[in-house]
This record gives sequence, C-alpha cells and structure tokens, in this order.
Amino acid sequence: MSAVPRPIVEIAEELGLEQDEIELYGQYKAKVKLEVLERLTAPRAKYVLVTGTTPTQFGEGKTTMTIGLGQAFKHLGLRSVVTVRQSSLGPVFGTKGAGAGGGAAQVLPFPDIALHFTGDGHAVTAAHNLCSAFLDNALYHGDVVLDPRTVTWPRVLDVNDRALRHIVTGLNESGGLTRSTRFDITAASEVMAILALARDYRDLRERIGRIVVGFTYDNQPVTAEQLRVAGPMTALLVDALKPNLVQTTEHTPAFVHTGPFGNIAHGNSSVIADLIATRLAEVVLTEAGFGTELGAEKFFHIKCRGSGLVPDAAVLVTSVRSIKAQGGLSGRRGRIDEQELAREDLGAVEAGLPNLAKHIENIKAFGVPVVVAVNRFPTDSERELDRVCCAALDLGAEGAAVASVYADGGPGGLEVARALLRAFEKPKAFRPLYDLDAPFERKVEVIARTLYGAGSVRFTAAARRQLAVLTRHGYDRLPVCMAKTPLSLSADPTVLGRPEGFEVQVRELRLLAGAGFVTVLLGDIQTMPALGRHPLGAEIDVDEHGVIHGLR
Amino acid sequence: MSAVPRPIVEIAEELGLEQDEIELYGQYKAKVKLEVLERLTAPRAKYVLVTGTTPTQFGEGKTTMTIGLGQAFKHLGLRSVVTVRQSSLGPVFGTKGAGAGGGAAQVLPFPDIALHFTGDGHAVTAAHNLCSAFLDNALYHGDVVLDPRTVTWPRVLDVNDRALRHIVTGLNESGGLTRSTRFDITAASEVMAILALARDYRDLRERIGRIVVGFTYDNQPVTAEQLRVAGPMTALLVDALKPNLVQTTEHTPAFVHTGPFGNIAHGNSSVIADLIATRLAEVVLTEAGFGTELGAEKFFHIKCRGSGLVPDAAVLVTSVRSIKAQGGLSGRRGRIDEQELAREDLGAVEAGLPNLAKHIENIKAFGVPVVVAVNRFPTDSERELDRVCCAALDLGAEGAAVASVYADGGPGGLEVARALLRAFEKPKAFRPLYDLDAPFERKVEVIARTLYGAGSVRFTAAARRQLAVLTRHGYDRLPVCMAKTPLSLSADPTVLGRPEGFEVQVRELRLLAGAGFVTVLLGDIQTMPALGRHPLGAEIDVDEHGVIHGLR
Repeated sequence: MSAVPRPIVEIAEELGLEQDEIELYGQYKAKVKLEVLERLTAPRAKYVLVTGTTPTQFGEGKTTMTIGLGQAFKHLGLRSVVTVRQSSLGPVFGTKGAGAGGGAAQVLPFPDIALHFTGDGHAVTAAHNLCSAFLDNALYHGDVVLDPRTVTWPRVLDVNDRALRHIVTGLNESGGLTRSTRFDITAASEVMAILALARDYRDLRERIGRIVVGFTYDNQPVTAEQLRVAGPMTALLVDALKPNLVQTTEHTPAFVHTGPFGNIAHGNSSVIADLIATRLAEVVLTEAGFGTELGAEKFFHIKCRGSGLVPDAAVLVTSVRSIKAQGGLSGRRGRIDEQELAREDLGAVEAGLPNLAKHIENIKAFGVPVVVAVNRFPTDSERELDRVCCAALDLGAEGAAVASVYADGGPGGLEVARALLRAFEKPKAFRPLYDLDAPFERKVEVIARTLYGAGSVRFTAAARRQLAVLTRHGYDRLPVCMAKTPLSLSADPTVLGRPEGFEVQVRELRLLAGAGFVTVLLGDIQTMPALGRHPLGAEIDVDEHGVIHGLR
Repeated sequence: MSAVPRPIVEIAEELGLEQDEIELYGQYKAKVKLEVLERLTAPRAKYVLVTGTTPTQFGEGKTTMTIGLGQAFKHLGLRSVVTVRQSSLGPVFGTKGAGAGGGAAQVLPFPDIALHFTGDGHAVTAAHNLCSAFLDNALYHGDVVLDPRTVTWPRVLDVNDRALRHIVTGLNESGGLTRSTRFDITAASEVMAILALARDYRDLRERIGRIVVGFTYDNQPVTAEQLRVAGPMTALLVDALKPNLVQTTEHTPAFVHTGPFGNIAHGNSSVIADLIATRLAEVVLTEAGFGTELGAEKFFHIKCRGSGLVPDAAVLVTSVRSIKAQGGLSGRRGRIDEQELAREDLGAVEAGLPNLAKHIENIKAFGVPVVVAVNRFPTDSERELDRVCCAALDLGAEGAAVASVYADGGPGGLEVARALLRAFEKPKAFRPLYDLDAPFERKVEVIARTLYGAGSVRFTAAARRQLAVLTRHGYDRLPVCMAKTPLSLSADPTVLGRPEGFEVQVRELRLLAGAGFVTVLLGDIQTMPALGRHPLGAEIDVDEHGVIHGLR
C-alpha cells in the first residue's frame, strides 16, 4: 500500500487523452468522457482476455496477474491498459477484500478504490431502488396493470446482509400491498449489468427502458419504460457510464469500471472502458470473473457480442496450489489446508492437470490462442512449477510461463508478456459456440456439453414454464447468462478435476431484458451474500487524522 | 440553470484556501480538507442564522434567500459564505425538487448538486446499513446479547418508498431471526445527524461508537462499538466529513454539506462547514429548516452547543402569501389556492401577522437580533409588502426589508444585508432556553411553552416508560430534538396563526446517543416519505449526449 501514485492528469496525458476529456475525482482518479469515442473512432490495440482455471475460494490472483501483465508490457515498450471490475462493499467488509490486486501489482489509490471510489456502485443502487419505488407506487395507485405475483424486480444494497434475502414489504399500509420480495447485492443488479454492457447514452437509455419488472395478468411484460422510471434511472447513471481511470503501482493506466458478479451476472468489466482503451493503447488486458466456463464464456458470448471487439489472445491464470486442489488435495468445496499446501506434492499436481487441460480446450474452442500464466506462490517448488508449464504446452497452449508479479511487479510478468506477443502472431478465428437464433435449450446444452463436460441438460418443470413465457415474447433469442458455482467445472461445488458425462439441471430462468440476456440458474445461487462470524470489516478503523487502517 | 460556473479552484483561492487544502470533484465541486482548521484556528466572521415563519407546503424560498444574501454581501465588499444542506434524492424524484435555490440565487453546478453530488448521502446510506447488517449478523450468530424486541436501529435508503415503512426481514433463514423493522429515508438517519454535528475525525469516530442500536434483556444499551462496526462505519464516512465547496450563481462560495431532515432530525447543515466558513469569511449565513420553533430552536440548542459558535444575528424569512395562509387564507394543512393568492387581501395579511410576531419573539427569546426579510413573489402588492415590513419593525425586529433575490440575485437582497450590518452593532446576549442538566420533561416544556405557545405538555404512558429507561443510563441529560409538523406552531398541522394554551402530547422518545440527543415525537412523524401519483421523477430524461432534462 506504500506506492505513491502520480497525478492522474499525467497518466491520462501519456495515454493520449486530452485535458477536457477527463473529469478529476481528487488528484488520483478521473472519469473519461464518452466524447473521446468521437475523436478516436477505431480500435487499434491487441485485446487480451485474462481468465483462469477452476479457482480455490482464495482466488488465483487473477486480478493481480492482469495488473502485473499490464505493467510488464510497459517494460517491453508498449502502451498498455488493464480493464478490471470495481470492488463491491459486500466482500470488502465480508471475507474477500477489495480485489484490487496485491503486492507489486495493484491499482491505486487505495483505499478509495475499495470503498466509494467515484460513486458508480452507489449510482446503481439508487437507480435500481428508484425503479422498485416506482413499481410499488404504481401497484399502490393502480396505475399499471401488473400481477404482483409475477414481480421479479428486487431491491439492492451494496452490503452482505443475510436478513434481506427474503423480506415482506408494505405492511400496515392502508390500501397498500404486502409483497414477499428480497434484496440482492448491488453487484447482482440488472442495472449493474446494463451499465457494464451499454455502448453509449442512447444504448443505456434504451436498455433501461427495456427492463422487465414483471408481467400483467395476461402475461404481457411490464417494463421500466411503462413505469415512467427509465428516464430518471438513466439520469442517475450519467456519470457512472464514464469509465474510471486510475493507475497501477508502476503508473500504467487502468480502467476500473462496473462490477457485475460472475456467478449470477455476466462477470466482466465494462464494454465502454474496453471500447475506449482499445482506441488509446497498444495492448489492452481485461479480466473476466472465475474460470473459463464462467467469466470467459460470458466474455465471448455476451461482452464481445455487445462490444464488437474480438480478442487476439487469452491468458489462462493458474497456480500450483489450485491445480493441487483440483487434484484432490483439498477438503470439501475447494477449501485448502495451509499445511498441506506448503509441501511439495507432484502427484497432486499430476492429478489436477486434467482441470488445466479442460480450461485450455475451452479457450481453444472459441478459436482464441491461449497462454498459460502460472502465478507463483512462496510455497511452490520449482519442480511443481516446471511440471505445470510443461504440461500446459503439451496440452495445446501457445505459451506457458511462471509469473511473479505479486513479488516483482511488471518484471515478474515479462515471460508471459513475451509469450503473448508471440501468440498475437498466430492465426486465429474467433467463433462463438452458438448462434442467437438457436433454440434456447440448445444454447444451454452447447455450453454445458462443450465447456463443462456435461452429458445432458435437464430443465425442471418450473424452468420449462418460464421458458414458455419468455419464448412467447421472443426473449428466447437472447444470449444465455449461466449462473453456477465457480468452484467446479460442473454445477456441483464438491466435484473436482475434469468431470464428464454428468447431468446439469436448470432450476430457474431469470429474464434480464435490459441487460439483454436470460440468466440460467444451475443449483442454488445466492444473490445476497452473508457476513461470517468474524467479518473483515471488524478489523477496520480510522484514526484522528481520518486515515483508514486495516482495510484489505 | 443557464449560469456558467467558474472553476472551483478560483473560488477556493479567493476564499483564502490553499491549493492542497481542497480535493476536486470535477471542475466545479471540491471537498475541503479538515487540515484547514489547524492553519486557521479562530472564527472571525459574523455568523447569521437564516430561519423563517411558519411555511406553506411550497416553502418560503428560504434557501433562495440565504443564497441571495450571500451574494448581496459581496456587493457590499464583504467576503461571504453560505452554508446550506444537501439535497435528498427522495424529494428530488418525489414532489419538492432539489432545494438548491432558484432564479438568480442558486447553488451550482446543477444537476450535480441535485443528484449524487460528491456522494456524501450514499456514504451515509452505506455506513448506516453496514451497522444494520452487523446487527442482524450478531443476532444470527448470537455473539451479542441483545433483546431483538428492543432493536431501534432501522435501515435507510435515499428514496421515497412507502412499501419500506414497515417490513419483516430474515424470512426463510435457517437459524435466523425474523424481525419486524423499517427503512427510513437517509436524511432521517442518525448517521446523517452525526455527520452534521461531528467537529473532527475523533469526534466522528466516538459518536459512531456511541450509537445505541437496542438494549440487552436487562436493559443495558448495546452500542455500535460493541457490534465492532463503528470503525468500518467511520471508514465509510472519511470523505463525507469534508465539506463540499461550490458556488452561487454570482460566484460567491457556498458550502453544501449534510442534509438531516428538519422534522425528525435536527435540520441544520454541518458544524464542520460552519467551523471552516467562519474562519475564512467575513460573513457566514447558515440556513435552518422550517420555522423558528423547529430548525432555529435546534440550531440554537443542538448545533450551536456542538460548534461553540454564537450567532450575531438572525434573518427571519417570510412572504406575503405565507402570512396570508396563516391568516386563514388557505385550505386545510396550509395548502393555498393559487387564484386566491394572486388577489390583494390586506385583511388576510393582518390576520396572519400574529404568526410573524410569534416567530420574532422566538428569536429574541434567545437574545439574538432579528431582521425580517420579506421574499417578494410576483403576485404580492406593494401595500401588502409594506404592511408586513412595518409590522415587523413594530413587533420588535431590528430591521425589515423586501428582498427580490429570485429575480435580481444579490442586488435584490442589499436592503436586508444592510439591515444585518446594522443589527451586528446591536448588543446581544445569546442564551439557550434550557440547561442540559434540567429535568428532561422540563426541557420539552420550556420549548413547547416558550416557542410553540403551548399551555401544557403531556407524556403518554409509553413515552414515560421510555424516559425511565433513558434516565437510568443518564441519557436524560442530552439535548432534546423536537419532531413535529412544520406547518403549524403547534403539533397539529391544521392549526393556523398563533395558537395559545394548547396541550402538547409527547408520543414517543427516540434515543440518538451518537448524534447526542433524544428525539421527542409529537404526533405522527413519517421517517420514510412516499411517492405521489405523479412523481416529479417521471418528467426527467436523458438525451443521447448524456444531458439530463426535466430535473428541478
């Protein structure tokens, strides 16, 4: 946390931004105005996806790797930008922390990025809940014919709050309506997904207007437009659509913008930041949440479809410890014993390699060259690291190298960066796995079979009924947004390695018409996290000078 | 809305702020760091309270007057600052609008001030709800012995949402706790009141720690400190404690900071802004919510006690139409017929003067010289305006003048400003109406008898039981924060003019130990407003360039 940031106006200038194209938020943060897209009309950067193998609950250091690689390209004389998601206050005060990188590969200024940052998350919360208030107000006054039993629009707060997962509202209101509903965390809000996918203000306004909050008694969709709340919601998001420019510990530029969760939403940073970054830089690295079967799949099918950008290569981040965990060296649900982790265990590495193999295959299935980056942890042995790198090459990766960006910053990522430069020269033929006009069940099946290794897909009766309603209004032609556990290639968090032939059960469909996809829930997915017995937040305090301590 | 603001760095420099004492939020907004209080250690400004007579539901233009008078002093060659409260998103999308002044006397930039501004309101929401989450988490894990029936800490959102007034949380949680609770609007949050009263970071941290969320089974208070949430809550408020510097339409400086509601909370802008402003400027004008018996009383008893600042004079804002309304020219609950309003009616003015008289007396009761400012509306006749000014002088005001700041800006307020300069020369002897160690009932009675004109005060049995608990822990020695309708000097919104001898009923007490007062509720006070059938928000929209239209 000791790195001293440079004034953001200098970073912006070096990146090629003009002075009136940025808005300062303090000395070290700036928003970039969308007008820059009128000045620079064509992308010119190499565009790199950073994804990962099946993670442990600690994460692989994927964000740290993304930042470190951005720094590495600077050492190779290339102008690079990294684009990553914003923190959510829930995990910051819960168990995961801010996710702003680590060691010598972080985004600055901290703790600003971990807390309110430039207020985008709060804007999403406000816009989302304004829709909720207009919705219940319309029900109260009877202005919109809406079957209250069909209302799917929750409220949101950016906090881990178990007690809000299921609530009843509207008690004791004369003439009012008592409803069973819930709060999600803000990162799971459809408004967050919309903000991450919108290409400009017109697109943002139209997407907000298309949000479906529920249905009439004769099964017609009711939209935010009909509630007359789409305009004011968009007004609350005008600043939030502008990407946030900050810097890494080595003063390379970073866009930290939007934070849709990777399990329930599409788990990628904003389209608009990538549109701008690819016109300014020579290399743009963008991180997708969780493994290839989750964040990367949605990057390819949802984000790239939205942006029109085509990736030149992908980095697959892995670690010896996560491969060992997938090889069986773990307790239940990917939880690792720290003692076991410290011991060299080539057998466990070997047993875990099929997981790595599957993730390499998954990226290659989209026609994108892949470079494996093995994130070095202090307890890794050289033999373990060598084995993973060799295996990666054998398994079809265009390149593979160990990276030590946490300890060494940019120089620790040079080998991976050089491998990427070589990968850029390889022939590529990006192709999505499904067409939008394929039958809805077929889209789900293609993903589950090709990327998860499933043998079959089964829709529950409830999901089938939901599909019938969606199909009637043409929503079956939207992309699917798969929601499942990140801790396994399958939908069962306890299944390790490279499972095959299993059945996937589609439990529920959720229409996010504004975001432009249908979320497909496999298994139980929580959209509001809970605090544990010892939340990270309890360790945080402020001294008499207003300096924050204990924030991670 | 057409006034073009100057860069805020220039405004800050003219005010005597050094460049490293401000943090820019775009080109036209800045936060002022608390370090400035270490450089400038003594107040030097004349300190003026702006209050009003009993308002109609349209308001008297008190904020507009405050801003216009700040502008007027510049024309007299004096360095002035106005300090006013921030907007709340509830009224912005509901019925009242942003309250950022009007016509030629506004604070800029609009719409920034009306919407997210610098995010302080969102920080309050986040800090407040983090406490709620920690509270329910403690109940869930059983870590803190807390009688769930005594929990008084709600959740908050910055939205008008009727359906959240009474909710049940924690449904369907295995081992969880189902509770009946509510959401208040953020402006009614104790955290907002604390932010408005804190003198520095240490004071902020301590006040947050003292928040009482409920009681144990043996009636011991349970605090935010015990929940281990006071540190992280304060971390969320570090930036929010820094006052926001903006400018008026005539480029004089304005601090727009914190927004505690005037009915349920203490209804005054922040102590910290006034501490800074009085060290930088020659004249500081600060606005208190509603009439003298509400915002001004709490200004004198709560805000001045907290800041240690003593007012040199008060401006009592009134208008012909509000005096007519108090004279009986109104429907129920102060609602005025626009047709009736346009007709000259000296009889109605005469009938309403006792209300003006009472408000003048109320300020003089505190030993503060008062100048009456009659806010000119287009429908007022000269004879009506003359009658009010003459009466004001007869009733003991040190000065009285018509002001037309909405139409004319600063020049429209010169007469009032000159009257204030004369009032500054008058002898004054500021005195609160009660001592903190007076019996609790006595404090309420002094306010109700002296300022409202009540004949007696009666505590309900419930309020008496609450008082017994509070007294046991010494909370009866806190100031009282009266919560009642602003539409009458009494607690009954239908009673006009200058009521006398009535009985006031204390319905409920609420302990805000962190803010440092006990709220005394007279009658039904809503802490979560509702949207009407035609919310203002529905008129707002955004064009393809990201420009917001229709916001008021």
